[in-house]
Amino acid sequence: MINNKDDNLIDGISSIHDVVLLKVQNSQEARILTSFADNNIKIILIAKASEEDFVCIAINKNEAGKAKELFLNKEDFNIDFQENLSIITIAGENMRGVPGTSSRLFNALGRNGVNVIAIAQGASEFNISVVINARDAKKALRSIKEAFLLSNFHALNLFIVGTGLIGGMLLKQIQEEYQKIKSEHNIDIRVCGLANGDNMILDKDGIDLAQWSSVLEQWSQTDIGEFIQKIKEFNLAKSVFVDCTASEKIASMYSTIFNNHISIVTPNKKANSNLFSEYKELKNLARVKNVSFLYETNVGAGLPVINTLRDLLASGDKIIKIEAVLSGTLSYIFNIFSTSDKLFSDIVAQAKEKGYTEPDPRDDLNGMDVARKILILAREIGLPLEIDDVEIEPLISKACEQAGSIDEFFIKLKEINEKFSQLRDEAKKQEKVFRYIASLENGKAKVLLKIVGRNNPFYALSGSDNMISFTTRRYHETPLVVKGPGAGSEVTAGGVLADIIRVAKS
Amino acid sequence: MINNKDDNLIDGISSIHDVVLLKVQNSQEARILTSFADNNIKIILIAKASEEDFVCIAINKNEAGKAKELFLNKEDFNIDFQENLSIITIAGENMRGVPGTSSRLFNALGRNGVNVIAIAQGASEFNISVVINARDAKKALRSIKEAFLLSNFHALNLFIVGTGLIGGMLLKQIQEEYQKIKSEHNIDIRVCGLANGDNMILDKDGIDLAQWSSVLEQWSQTDIGEFIQKIKEFNLAKSVFVDCTASEKIASMYSTIFNNHISIVTPNKKANSNLFSEYKELKNLARVKNVSFLYETNVGAGLPVINTLRDLLASGDKIIKIEAVLSGTLSYIFNIFSTSDKLFSDIVAQAKEKGYTEPDPRDDLNGMDVARKILILAREIGLPLEIDDVEIEPLISKACEQAGSIDEFFIKLKEINEKFSQLRDEAKKQEKVFRYIASLENGKAKVLLKIVGRNNPFYALSGSDNMISFTTRRYHETPLVVKGPGAGSEVTAGGVLADIIRVAKS
Repeated sequence: MINNKDDNLIDGISSIHDVVLLKVQNSQEARILTSFADNNIKIILIAKASEEDFVCIAINKNEAGKAKELFLNKEDFNIDFQENLSIITIAGENMRGVPGTSSRLFNALGRNGVNVIAIAQGASEFNISVVINARDAKKALRSIKEAFLLSNFHALNLFIVGTGLIGGMLLKQIQEEYQKIKSEHNIDIRVCGLANGDNMILDKDGIDLAQWSSVLEQWSQTDIGEFIQKIKEFNLAKSVFVDCTASEKIASMYSTIFNNHISIVTPNKKANSNLFSEYKELKNLARVKNVSFLYETNVGAGLPVINTLRDLLASGDKIIKIEAVLSGTLSYIFNIFSTSDKLFSDIVAQAKEKGYTEPDPRDDLNGMDVARKILILAREIGLPLEIDDVEIEPLISKACEQAGSIDEFFIKLKEINEKFSQLRDEAKKQEKVFRYIASLENGKAKVLLKIVGRNNPFYALSGSDNMISFTTRRYHETPLVVKGPGAGSEVTAGGVLADIIRVAKS
Repeated sequence: MINNKDDNLIDGISSIHDVVLLKVQNSQEARILTSFADNNIKIILIAKASEEDFVCIAINKNEAGKAKELFLNKEDFNIDFQENLSIITIAGENMRGVPGTSSRLFNALGRNGVNVIAIAQGASEFNISVVINARDAKKALRSIKEAFLLSNFHALNLFIVGTGLIGGMLLKQIQEEYQKIKSEHNIDIRVCGLANGDNMILDKDGIDLAQWSSVLEQWSQTDIGEFIQKIKEFNLAKSVFVDCTASEKIASMYSTIFNNHISIVTPNKKANSNLFSEYKELKNLARVKNVSFLYETNVGAGLPVINTLRDLLASGDKIIKIEAVLSGTLSYIFNIFSTSDKLFSDIVAQAKEKGYTEPDPRDDLNGMDVARKILILAREIGLPLEIDDVEIEPLISKACEQAGSIDEFFIKLKEINEKFSQLRDEAKKQEKVFRYIASLENGKAKVLLKIVGRNNPFYALSGSDNMISFTTRRYHETPLVVKGPGAGSEVTAGGVLADIIRVAKS
């Protein structure tokens, strides 16, 4: 017997497979039990809830034939036999009188989508038995063991899609932090599925992260539908789908994933910044299915933005204004540009070379990325805004945005160099800098290029800093401000990992 | 029948009081059931878990006499009768096949300290019955109703100690936000207990917050032991003890409160900044008792400091350095002093007059308040530090601190005016300002007075701003910064309310 390190609440867990459950009418229970006793049919469990007309009696499958024979041809008996069941029992003298024991048991089962068919807990010794489908038995046993700390860690099974900058860094962090997270937080993170645009790998025992890249190459071609189907078939306790892509297609599958009782953690903004009605439905589905949907990294990467906003709102504070620099990429570009003598297009090209921009820098410069972020904050506040409701001042012209290839775009981009150089000269004279500032006030979201001086709170940003300033009814004289690097694979992956651990602890 | 607004998971809840539970031996169950059937004794519930040698049979109290008579004098029967029980049954066709239903039920019971004596759930219809002590029946019924949204709100019963600046503001905020919190978060906040240094009032139906002050005056003299005893006797679902004092004595009672399955929310730093061993024990007790212990307002008032730190650590980030301005009072004093020509002692006197300082300003100026805050952050990181391990540069001399009365202290305080005026002249010349900065690095906590220039991140603080800067392995080039008002009854009470709501949602 494995011992509970913690408080020895339970002494052990046992399971009986091949169980058959008989449903008999109340009026017949005494006769049936007498008959079973006479024929040496062992009764494993009896359960009859108040106001039920039937009693449930569990017996072993190998005695079911005998039981059926006893009553099969007696037409006054009407017994229903249900097969392919298992019974799991937890036992422990110390559980007696401890509130929350059954809560812990049923939490472990419910959270992992195990349906409980029948329950019996007698008052004599302290045993609780649950009847479940045989196919859920393994998952149920593991969940219960973890819930009662019979094993000293909680398994968390990740299915990660996307192995680019963020996904790759997340895998590295999980590998590096694995032991620490296991020893300090009792969480055993396993990556049981991994997919990118080319290949996918699925292994319910966990993938060796030291060589995921080479193993992945040898695996099958990615079929995301099959990937999700496999997660469902694995039926593992505490599964989390981690979407490290920026894909619309993956985002469109979230509802299928929630419907399979699987949580989602993602830095992908797509699902939260599409149609408001879809966003609402998704949030509601996660709530109904009792799974987590965490996306703190949608705004400000690893910075505590969405959680801070939620706390303010929950405590009855009222948001008067949000002002924010939300693009680490643009912060970086403007910070370099403001203090250099180079042309704007050259700074953008340099940023692209260093990997600071999206593959196509237009995705940063057209303002859509920032607009999606302020939209997500607006929706958290409860405003039913659509992306078209956000007023955006793009940094590049429509012609430039629609220039065709990236090379053609860079040629077009040169056309705005003069304007930006002039603006910079003006700004330098006044000791001012460029900031691309998103705002939300009076229900209206805007994204505008501003030139700000030393006394402006957004002046003193460096590197790829983001800064989010909440002016609220309570924080009205000076705002509540969160500031720090808001881009970069390391902090983003760290934020994703924090969300993943939050799922494990929830 | 009240209808479930949400998803009609259950059709109803019923309860039977005056229940007697019989414990009979397995081998005798058939004979006993036959005998009950022959004598028209109605069986409410049967439960026999796997591996138990006994079967539990629940009957009505008014049939217990008959049952006893049947078996009393038959020496081969050994039946145990347990009285003063209730059975609560939830029923609903739609619960069938929905994982998590039993989890929701037992969560509601466990969270509220209701001990479940026996359980039965048959597989036929979907009823779950629980046998509980009769004294828990009312609380259990209310908890279950709330868990299944039969009533559309969750009651949260507060017992608030301290009605000063923060406690008074909290009461005001609860009153003002009551409807909004109820409608948007389905939480029905009731203040069922209120105490200050003079009087206490206890009312399990909730105190009328519009006139708490005048009602409190007419109530009994405060006896905090009796106050806690009453919370226990009320035995209400989801009770939260809110300590809005700065009292050591109240803090010493937290373990008693946790032992009664009651959560604690507090801005009081005392419990977390006393002996490390006591801090550790308290945290452990809250975990074992499965109650919340939230104190985000211990550091930075309503700013997200402790939660941010916890997220960083949980995701495997490593804290390299924390630098912070943690006293709103001292920020205010230095912000005024730096830009004025007045004497330091006059600024302190003025701050005291305006209510910005502690009643005795020495509590701010001796650095202990800031030291306790950095100590709490150090402990969150896992450092087993004691308050004596914190290196403190007090702003006032020992003589000044031990000067006797407050008036005598102000006379003594004049002695350091010259030093501060000199420092200010120096600072002004170099365009620098005073900041009282706490730091934690390499396991060492310090609180020092610093004079910083425009390029120092702590330069640009205004009013009573706090600023907490986390340099971590991931946030290493530029830190993660949280900034904003870190004192004041409004933001502190708001932070306490956010913690209270977090308890309700947990």
